Amino acid sequence: MGDAPPISPLAPKSFPTLPVIGGVSFACVEAGVRYAGRKDVMLARLDPGTAMAGVFTKSATRSAAVLDCQAKIGAGNSDAAAAIIVNSGNANAFTGKNGTQATYAVTKAVARALDLPESRVFSSSTGVIGEPLPHDRITAKLDALARSLSADAIEDAANAIRTTDTFAKGSGTILKISGQEVRIAGIAKGSGMIAPDMATMLVYIFTDARIEQPVLQSMVSALNRKTFNCITVDSDTSTSDTLLVAATGASGVEVTETSILFLEALRNVMLDLAHQVVRDGEGATKFVEVAVTGAASDNEARIHALSIANSPLVKTALAGEDPNWGRIVMAIGKSGARADRDTISIWFGDILVAREGWVDPDYDEDQAAEYMKNQELVISVDLGLGGGTARVWTCDLTHGYISINADYRS
Amino acid sequence: MGDAPPISPLAPKSFPTLPVIGGVSFACVEAGVRYAGRKDVMLARLDPGTAMAGVFTKSATRSAAVLDCQAKIGAGNSDAAAAIIVNSGNANAFTGKNGTQATYAVTKAVARALDLPESRVFSSSTGVIGEPLPHDRITAKLDALARSLSADAIEDAANAIRTTDTFAKGSGTILKISGQEVRIAGIAKGSGMIAPDMATMLVYIFTDARIEQPVLQSMVSALNRKTFNCITVDSDTSTSDTLLVAATGASGVEVTETSILFLEALRNVMLDLAHQVVRDGEGATKFVEVAVTGAASDNEARIHALSIANSPLVKTALAGEDPNWGRIVMAIGKSGARADRDTISIWFGDILVAREGWVDPDYDEDQAAEYMKNQELVISVDLGLGGGTARVWTCDLTHGYISINADYRS
Repeated sequence: MGDAPPISPLAPKSFPTLPVIGGVSFACVEAGVRYAGRKDVMLARLDPGTAMAGVFTKSATRSAAVLDCQAKIGAGNSDAAAAIIVNSGNANAFTGKNGTQATYAVTKAVARALDLPESRVFSSSTGVIGEPLPHDRITAKLDALARSLSADAIEDAANAIRTTDTFAKGSGTILKISGQEVRIAGIAKGSGMIAPDMATMLVYIFTDARIEQPVLQSMVSALNRKTFNCITVDSDTSTSDTLLVAATGASGVEVTETSILFLEALRNVMLDLAHQVVRDGEGATKFVEVAVTGAASDNEARIHALSIANSPLVKTALAGEDPNWGRIVMAIGKSGARADRDTISIWFGDILVAREGWVDPDYDEDQAAEYMKNQELVISVDLGLGGGTARVWTCDLTHGYISINADYRS
Repeated sequence: MGDAPPISPLAPKSFPTLPVIGGVSFACVEAGVRYAGRKDVMLARLDPGTAMAGVFTKSATRSAAVLDCQAKIGAGNSDAAAAIIVNSGNANAFTGKNGTQATYAVTKAVARALDLPESRVFSSSTGVIGEPLPHDRITAKLDALARSLSADAIEDAANAIRTTDTFAKGSGTILKISGQEVRIAGIAKGSGMIAPDMATMLVYIFTDARIEQPVLQSMVSALNRKTFNCITVDSDTSTSDTLLVAATGASGVEVTETSILFLEALRNVMLDLAHQVVRDGEGATKFVEVAVTGAASDNEARIHALSIANSPLVKTALAGEDPNWGRIVMAIGKSGARADRDTISIWFGDILVAREGWVDPDYDEDQAAEYMKNQELVISVDLGLGGGTARVWTCDLTHGYISINADYRS
């Protein structure tokens, strides 16, 4: 592996203090799946009655663990206890029938060790693609894991699921609904938006709210579209992306689809974790929001925003602190969504750069170049066509990205 | 501009000797549009009776010159003489109404200088975006240009249209149809598949065949889909892409849609120019063919091939000479076209890497790593689903690309 890369300059100062979630306990172990000298397997146990919701990669080559989770979400016996088991170092993706067998071996062993139905065991694997998962190294540790479960080991869990991440990612909050406390805590891993052989984005969120599974699933799916589905590091999509949300009900507070406070709190945790993944983007030195308004529809706004956020030429200009608005015009033009050259306005931060199809007469490039030196940037585009809006988040494309992905031999 | 970048390691050894095309003459001049000390305007005059066909960028923010060409193709009076005028250094894109006026000023002045209808003057501009085109610098040189037209100045023309290109691009051939010679010669510019502020791909091809305009147009559109539309350097699309093909008829040889020999010769010239654009890809050190077979349709094969060819993770692995087939699996998975993980086969050159959803038991990674050291690479994928095929060409993604686009301040 060589030397560990330095911590991203965009990382938060430290791992946050997360609320303890009733009904959830964690354990981590050094199983030696691939990495030496660090914990690489995380187990979470969830009390009986926990509702589980999930969103997964749409990749046609998704991993055995993803397929297994998809089959179980919404179908299991929610009265039983549940578990999540995650290993880093090996993605168990593109490993043929052996991959399916390895996933089954792990989930079956977890079910036995924790005495719960196999249909309630959700697993993820992240790391190198195409190598057989040494599942016996994981199953050999399950009894030890089961014995060491503890309510306050979530930071340990956030570290155990890291691959190329330069920092552990966590986010949480405590809100009050009708005077009663409800807690949310989540962890994530991800660095290349998707670096498949180092794969990729995994997110686990826990709450002690009591929520019916179909309600939780529809909340999570909707919020995912405005959070994790609005970030991009390099436009590459993983074989392993998994978001699982577990609601244990331990607080006794019932949450329904009309609980705006809860929805907003869950959204904030999801968005914070999504932003942390971008902040750990491979080689990233800038955290960039792209805000599009005035599109023909929300969907077309999103297409424009992602076209800007994924353009190598826009991203290299950001790395070079170059207010190169011509490249933004280019990215709008190529997106395939509707645009009228003569009604486009573009801002860097509060600086109006272009309007009505040309550079603004008051535009001062020196001022824009000064703005581009900030670590956090906002690019705004108004298309002047309709009411469609979207916001996405990305990072710049630097020599660091090339070094991590080209100079390094996996 | 700083120092000129070194010539691409993938460049042909020298500019080819191109056949002289009857009915076409060229002139170039140093107009000082942006660059100092080099010719930056090219004029081509085409005899009366020349059929003109064209294919243009689909960008919604395309330049005034592109819009003007699109309006004229197929609509003009083909009995009159025609002209093509191209400047480098300024793309006249996203320049509002001034841009339209600048294009009109140039094409009108060419029509007057050469005594031909303005509807028969086709123009292109390539270079920086968003700055007003100093069109009077071009129009001031038109009488000098008109006086210096010469049949054998095509290499000069190929040089005058360069922006960040590290070498001039030309290709030509002489074929015999029923014992009579027909000639084809073309020039191109392009380096980033599209570097919009340095823009971008321009191609001009000339033949002395006699072809009806609608026949030529349908030939060019069809061949474009298999040549220029099958290359990608960085997935970014220009505001200025223009392909013009002029058939003067000077050979007296009539060519129809059934002239397989001519179609093949024109295709070879177009493909050669397309490959030269990839070989001059910004920072490129590898020339890569991606060949997909066994897809559900030709269109889905193309989607898979472009997903592989555009993936930053695949392209950085190529730069690192890393036989990272897991990233190819990832790119197939994310493409959106149909794929079955368990029927995919992958080759590097002749080396079978993966089949039936896993690495081939005889795969030798050292042998594959040795193959990846070649300057020209072929990645083949068979999806095992149907009869759809596609071939696309790309280059690797290197520190050189970042340096050209980020370190350099436009």
